Amino acid sequence: MSSSTLVALLHGPDQPGIVARVAAWIFERGGNILHADQHRDMEAGVFFQRIEWVPAQGASSTDTAGFLAFADSLGMQARVTASAHRPRMAIFVSKFDHCFHDLALRWKSGEYACDLVAVVSNHTDLETAARGYGLPYHVIPVTAATKPAGEARQLALLRDLDVELVVLARYMQVLSDTFFKKFARPVINIHHSFLPAFAGGKPYHQAAERGVKLIGATAHYATAVLDDGPIIQQDVTRVTHRHGVEDLVRKGRDLEKMVLAQAVRWHLESRVLVYGNKTVVFD
Amino acid sequence: MSSSTLVALLHGPDQPGIVARVAAWIFERGGNILHADQHRDMEAGVFFQRIEWVPAQGASSTDTAGFLAFADSLGMQARVTASAHRPRMAIFVSKFDHCFHDLALRWKSGEYACDLVAVVSNHTDLETAARGYGLPYHVIPVTAATKPAGEARQLALLRDLDVELVVLARYMQVLSDTFFKKFARPVINIHHSFLPAFAGGKPYHQAAERGVKLIGATAHYATAVLDDGPIIQQDVTRVTHRHGVEDLVRKGRDLEKMVLAQAVRWHLESRVLVYGNKTVVFD
Amino acid sequence: MSSSTLVALLHGPDQPGIVARVAAWIFERGGNILHADQHRDMEAGVFFQRIEWVPAQGASSTDTAGFLAFADSLGMQARVTASAHRPRMAIFVSKFDHCFHDLALRWKSGEYACDLVAVVSNHTDLETAARGYGLPYHVIPVTAATKPAGEARQLALLRDLDVELVVLARYMQVLSDTFFKKFARPVINIHHSFLPAFAGGKPYHQAAERGVKLIGATAHYATAVLDDGPIIQQDVTRVTHRHGVEDLVRKGRDLEKMVLAQAVRWHLESRVLVYGNKTVVFD
Amino acid sequence: MSSSTLVALLHGPDQPGIVARVAAWIFERGGNILHADQHRDMEAGVFFQRIEWVPAQGASSTDTAGFLAFADSLGMQARVTASAHRPRMAIFVSKFDHCFHDLALRWKSGEYACDLVAVVSNHTDLETAARGYGLPYHVIPVTAATKPAGEARQLALLRDLDVELVVLARYMQVLSDTFFKKFARPVINIHHSFLPAFAGGKPYHQAAERGVKLIGATAHYATAVLDDGPIIQQDVTRVTHRHGVEDLVRKGRDLEKMVLAQAVRWHLESRVLVYGNKTVVFD
Repeated sequence: MSSSTLVALLHGPDQPGIVARVAAWIFERGGNILHADQHRDMEAGVFFQRIEWVPAQGASSTDTAGFLAFADSLGMQARVTASAHRPRMAIFVSKFDHCFHDLALRWKSGEYACDLVAVVSNHTDLETAARGYGLPYHVIPVTAATKPAGEARQLALLRDLDVELVVLARYMQVLSDTFFKKFARPVINIHHSFLPAFAGGKPYHQAAERGVKLIGATAHYATAVLDDGPIIQQDVTRVTHRHGVEDLVRKGRDLEKMVLAQAVRWHLESRVLVYGNKTVVFD
Repeated sequence: MSSSTLVALLHGPDQPGIVARVAAWIFERGGNILHADQHRDMEAGVFFQRIEWVPAQGASSTDTAGFLAFADSLGMQARVTASAHRPRMAIFVSKFDHCFHDLALRWKSGEYACDLVAVVSNHTDLETAARGYGLPYHVIPVTAATKPAGEARQLALLRDLDVELVVLARYMQVLSDTFFKKFARPVINIHHSFLPAFAGGKPYHQAAERGVKLIGATAHYATAVLDDGPIIQQDVTRVTHRHGVEDLVRKGRDLEKMVLAQAVRWHLESRVLVYGNKTVVFD
Repeated sequence: MSSSTLVALLHGPDQPGIVARVAAWIFERGGNILHADQHRDMEAGVFFQRIEWVPAQGASSTDTAGFLAFADSLGMQARVTASAHRPRMAIFVSKFDHCFHDLALRWKSGEYACDLVAVVSNHTDLETAARGYGLPYHVIPVTAATKPAGEARQLALLRDLDVELVVLARYMQVLSDTFFKKFARPVINIHHSFLPAFAGGKPYHQAAERGVKLIGATAHYATAVLDDGPIIQQDVTRVTHRHGVEDLVRKGRDLEKMVLAQAVRWHLESRVLVYGNKTVVFD
Repeated sequence: MSSSTLVALLHGPDQPGIVARVAAWIFERGGNILHADQHRDMEAGVFFQRIEWVPAQGASSTDTAGFLAFADSLGMQARVTASAHRPRMAIFVSKFDHCFHDLALRWKSGEYACDLVAVVSNHTDLETAARGYGLPYHVIPVTAATKPAGEARQLALLRDLDVELVVLARYMQVLSDTFFKKFARPVINIHHSFLPAFAGGKPYHQAAERGVKLIGATAHYATAVLDDGPIIQQDVTRVTHRHGVEDLVRKGRDLEKMVLAQAVRWHLESRVLVYGNKTVVFD
């Protein structure tokens, strides 16, 4: 049953009766609502909803198109995903392997309902590991001089593979504005600090320098503005004066893995609605 | 506006279309749904919902009665509360004052939408503190020999004051089966352990003895079975070998305050639905 | 016994044999070491220690002076406190009362080994509450125009009362460089964010705007640089899109209370050693 | 330098001057104390210490033997480890692979200063994974009938390989009293609950049944008494009514990995001192 549900994420101007009207639309077409979770931003007057239903037999594509038109008629923006659809995901890595192994193992164990179609790297370091998981590994070197050409190759690859989600698993190159515009699909990044504290380079060094008592990690949708973009998940762990930068790096690895894994999971389950520079996570 | 909403908590056998039918019932009577949160226990086939709406002007009591009949027609159990209604709460205390001060200060600051109508104690210790908050303080001594008489006085007082919620804020007497049967309204207790670990007496001593690395606190609806009853909220804090029993007691006080305060808040906001010996908390 | 211990906090250039030499110094004078905790900042080559001992009978003041000379001979900076000494503390407040009540209740319950000698405020709002705890309340209004005069009055009061620690319990005025220079004793502040994120005004609004998934609070020694100064303690709590600014404020109150209470406790127990713009907390 | 330190864990009856005497013993032999951490159980009158020092050049083995004799003369029990020594570790697994992958990856990345000399299993499921890490995999089937023979084979293997630490990474067989007696070296187990709550089988089912709001994991030294034995580390994560048993299992996997990884790390760094049925963790 769960393989044939539809999930809609919608938002738009709040209006009386909207919960009932959405429910009625589905009910009248023979659908059965499994989950419905809504949120009102009272100040902004915006309504947000995630709703999951089992469409009447064979009505999956009809419902998808119909719901989008219905939402449009309400002045709402909507996205509808069939749970049977497995998104095609690519992971970008450099030399750090902890997030990569973590994602790959979760994917292999069946935690993620997606197809992991490519590992892309500017280095060869993780090639053996990737092949060990049976994953295609693409080396696309990037230097200051070759960045435009490198990104063009990345984009061509993503297009060829019809990649729907890119996860930057401690990928150490900054992607250009052009990359984001051309890819035009979600990119999730993990930053090793509690953003907005310690954006930019060497966040663990910055944290040690400031003497904070907690270090953090932040998973967010990447945009052309470095370490900005809507935050999906964050977590922190306690550190003391006994922890040098090396310890922060080590402890941070576990944080990064957990936070990125959770963000990817929520994204794949259509639980994350982006609104302005923020997210509504229906967990 | 928020002073005139209705909140329904309902549960019963899951059935297709239920989300839409509930939404339609409200919509057709001119109500506007503000929040709706539902849960399905797939295994047990039970549907749970908390739904909050603004009824059409003047329809508050009509909607209340009507919704109960409607829920009944669906085979559902329901409870409807008007947000304008301020429940009447009594706090039972003995000698420990930390939870008492915490609840009283939250109430005074307006965090709790309830009327705090009585403080009941088997000791005189907190009388001055209670009067300082302007709260009526009732001393009802309880010994093994006088427990039936003491509970009778407590019950008479609760009846006279029409108390709808009793909070046991480290009240150190075990209430009898008779008390619960006769009061027949919710009683929230705070136990100073992560239940079901360390039920019964001296839980911090038990924790120190076992050498656990976290101590906890549990707020639950009290029943005639000691330290049993549906759990509403729990939390833990880290301890080390450096913490003796005295430190566990001190650290535990902060846990107890926070956990009990949260449970009372959720209860007062009609967010807690009891089902079997468990709770569904719509937070 | 615990009423007659000495606690030394010392730091300086690391050197071989230092742990043994400090221990030997105490042992040779008939002292018995109860606790000793040291830390080496390997990179900076700095040694830090907190050591607590029972001096030989009647040797408390001799040991204090002697230890300072001994530390000096090692090129170390030291501070020695007799546990029998109760520091004189003042609390500065404005209109928010949650941190004030929390500190006052902890003090009354005996959690803090200090004398709470004054509550200072630029408003009259908390006067009744302070007097309820039996605390002297001093109203010293401060406006942009009267700040120098107001601070002069504050300083005179602190001098008269020989105040050794000022706690800013959501005191809403920025203290001037002159104040810090003239007072020249520790001032602990609570900031309602996870510093260095959201320094400055309205941090909960900033947090809501940025869409973070955790909000925090930071207790630090205040300096003339706003929301800078060595961090003593920090903590965070999870928030979601469901929490508006009002909810962040409410949830933040509990964070602020806990974080400030812990920082004050550590300071009073001579557990906090300031080094550069950071702290070493021997907990 | 760190490759040539000695770490002593000692405990015994508390006595005046002990900190100074231990420090002096090391200092007089030309050693330099890097870290020293001690604890007093005031009630029991027991002194505990972890002390790490750089011995005089070439004095590593002399110091080891000498310190043991010195501790003995003080009536203390002691264990001394050279940091250059890499303990030989074996991991026992069954079919669950999450803890196994986590430990193996940490070991490969250099997080653990040990030699991982064997993976032992009662099933063949993880053989490919183990070989992928270059680890020898030993299948020793165990049934009710063959347990004595199976354990004899396990013990022979551990003896042949001189294994100094066994980690039960969700190994699903109960080891017998005989096994513990004959192996006579530390065995670390991970239990998927917050012990002592939910000891025994199916702890996640027990947790779901009781309706707890937090689930936990516990790493402890295994003894012949199931799910008893000194606790090394524990942690919890929040769950709600939305989490079915399957979700608890999934969320619990992350807990189990983190808690077990931390316990193994502390053990390998000689930070865990067992006393009675409890541990003192010098972290």
